[in-house]
Amino acid sequence: MKSAVSSLVRSNNSLISRTLLYHSSKPISQSPFFLSNIPKNLFNQRYQKLQFSPNSTSIMASLSKSEQAREPPALPLPSPPLTKFKIGLCQLSVTPDKERNIKHARKAIEEAAQKGAQLVLLPEIWNSPYSNDSFPVYAEDINAGGDASPSTAMLSEVASRLKITIVGGSIPERCGDKLYNTCCVFGTDGKLKAKHRKIHLFDIDIPGKITFMESKTLTAGETPTVVDTDVGRIGIGICYDIRFTELAMIYAARGAHLICYPGAFNMTTGPLHWELSQRARAMDNQLYVATCSPARDPGAGYVAWGHSTLVGPFGEVLASTEHEEDIIIAEIDYSILEQRRASLPFTKQRRGDLYKLVDIQRLNSH
Amino acid sequence: MKSAVSSLVRSNNSLISRTLLYHSSKPISQSPFFLSNIPKNLFNQRYQKLQFSPNSTSIMASLSKSEQAREPPALPLPSPPLTKFKIGLCQLSVTPDKERNIKHARKAIEEAAQKGAQLVLLPEIWNSPYSNDSFPVYAEDINAGGDASPSTAMLSEVASRLKITIVGGSIPERCGDKLYNTCCVFGTDGKLKAKHRKIHLFDIDIPGKITFMESKTLTAGETPTVVDTDVGRIGIGICYDIRFTELAMIYAARGAHLICYPGAFNMTTGPLHWELSQRARAMDNQLYVATCSPARDPGAGYVAWGHSTLVGPFGEVLASTEHEEDIIIAEIDYSILEQRRASLPFTKQRRGDLYKLVDIQRLNSH
Repeated sequence: MKSAVSSLVRSNNSLISRTLLYHSSKPISQSPFFLSNIPKNLFNQRYQKLQFSPNSTSIMASLSKSEQAREPPALPLPSPPLTKFKIGLCQLSVTPDKERNIKHARKAIEEAAQKGAQLVLLPEIWNSPYSNDSFPVYAEDINAGGDASPSTAMLSEVASRLKITIVGGSIPERCGDKLYNTCCVFGTDGKLKAKHRKIHLFDIDIPGKITFMESKTLTAGETPTVVDTDVGRIGIGICYDIRFTELAMIYAARGAHLICYPGAFNMTTGPLHWELSQRARAMDNQLYVATCSPARDPGAGYVAWGHSTLVGPFGEVLASTEHEEDIIIAEIDYSILEQRRASLPFTKQRRGDLYKLVDIQRLNSH
Repeated sequence: MKSAVSSLVRSNNSLISRTLLYHSSKPISQSPFFLSNIPKNLFNQRYQKLQFSPNSTSIMASLSKSEQAREPPALPLPSPPLTKFKIGLCQLSVTPDKERNIKHARKAIEEAAQKGAQLVLLPEIWNSPYSNDSFPVYAEDINAGGDASPSTAMLSEVASRLKITIVGGSIPERCGDKLYNTCCVFGTDGKLKAKHRKIHLFDIDIPGKITFMESKTLTAGETPTVVDTDVGRIGIGICYDIRFTELAMIYAARGAHLICYPGAFNMTTGPLHWELSQRARAMDNQLYVATCSPARDPGAGYVAWGHSTLVGPFGEVLASTEHEEDIIIAEIDYSILEQRRASLPFTKQRRGDLYKLVDIQRLNSH
């Protein structure tokens, strides 16, 4: 694991540099990867002009109304590395036995891969019970890797052995004296390609129904995460992150084909909002949305809703399940993204003269 | 009608001035209503500071992360003039006979009021067939009023006689050499309180299913519309406007309790997206959403989906109907808005350090 993390920092291959473009909170112009490694299809002519102009205001005036609705202007949808592939959503049972959880997840990933999945998505907090008491106990030092993070070591090993991409749900992460709810993405070479720390902590209080305060133990992440993989450009959100439509909107503007949300909605918000949120993000942003929940354990302190789902760019549910353990295998076809956007050309119809969504980190990186 | 329109321009009462705050595309500081007539509950302490500061950057830095997610910062939800009331959604049949359409709408509004509705919503394009051929023929000069706009004259008369608020669906409007798809809002005194011209024109092409290009005949409006009425602060969108989540987001930030969308989705986009869009806007923005469609006429050139609906702030469908003519009477209870927002406090959880939605006209008016 340690070598995988180090390679994320040191490697100069183009996939990693693209990841950094999205992740860095420092101006990207200070990065050795600035522009030199950015694939040309990331930038259209107008966008390049914007980068080098001494007077961005006049350039903004020359942009069309719809382009001004995103700042920086939305990237064109990149050509995906493949068009059709299978995704596997592993709705896993989770127990207090971490070793069992890791073995169990490994077996499910293997089964999904055997059924043809080139991308496997795991649930939120799949190696630990979902509770503020458990997070510190089950947390792993992902940056240290190896024995300090057996959960992600397993993901790295399986990804590389099976040559699949894994969006590894989430686990409690310890970093210094802080805890995060963290999703790791591993490439087909087993290397850690991205790490998303839940940005919006789950602090809700519906009297008589559900009260939970993640912020009692966890710290919120500081960075939206979009990562280029062998199965397309993927935006990552964890559970409550799906509530904030702005995050999905900036992922779409960064050219994401798919957003993966590991998530454990509960018995109150699940029936109310789980499917609705997924369908809304997919429809409004015209991309795929995949979610993965733990299986329901009625005896657990926090009872998950289940219902892991794949949604297409018209907001249509392509595959789903109930609340028991299950592995969903479903096909993603990126060729329909352009079709849907041609039919309903939202990106050309937005009123940038009336509203504008600013992606602050991407803006600051230029 | 003429006097009603003139009064909108000349009147100095506070409701009208609040309307202008939202409508004016000129800096509001040039308006005689600037601040003097804005109710104090529209502005919290911090917001007032922002207005008068010579250095808004430093003020922004002192705002919390979540407040920075909207620029200008979101207004607090205003106290509504009443808590509970009934809304009437009149899903009307529409024929090529304009005179019949006006009489028919009048009768439906009267019936809704008789059943207790204090707010009545009509469908998109209720006085004319929905077609590019019909728009120029049925268009009315709303600003001239009187005989030049029999449809809105009727709305004004009924509103004042029955002492109800009417969100008058939409009609084709002629203004100079331009045509608009326009919604008029009448107060309980029969005065025109707001006029919303559809901002996002309906230009879509789903091959083999539905192709329509409103922009062949219509011009897009230039102004989002939020209006204070006797039944709360209402944002207005027309049909395709609902597709653009940014509009609902800026309405929420302007303190809307309810968004009304007259709309005529079709037999393709209706089953796919009509209810989903409404529920998404309500859930994400934690406000009420009401929609009103024409009834379905299978013999018409454009076949409407119907399914007029009221959605509550959890995205829950409170009342709906099928595709036949119908008048839905349903209760709105604004007291649950604060409850829902306390349970799921999105407005305090947004990450204004990562994203920011700018309401350009409101920003320019300060």
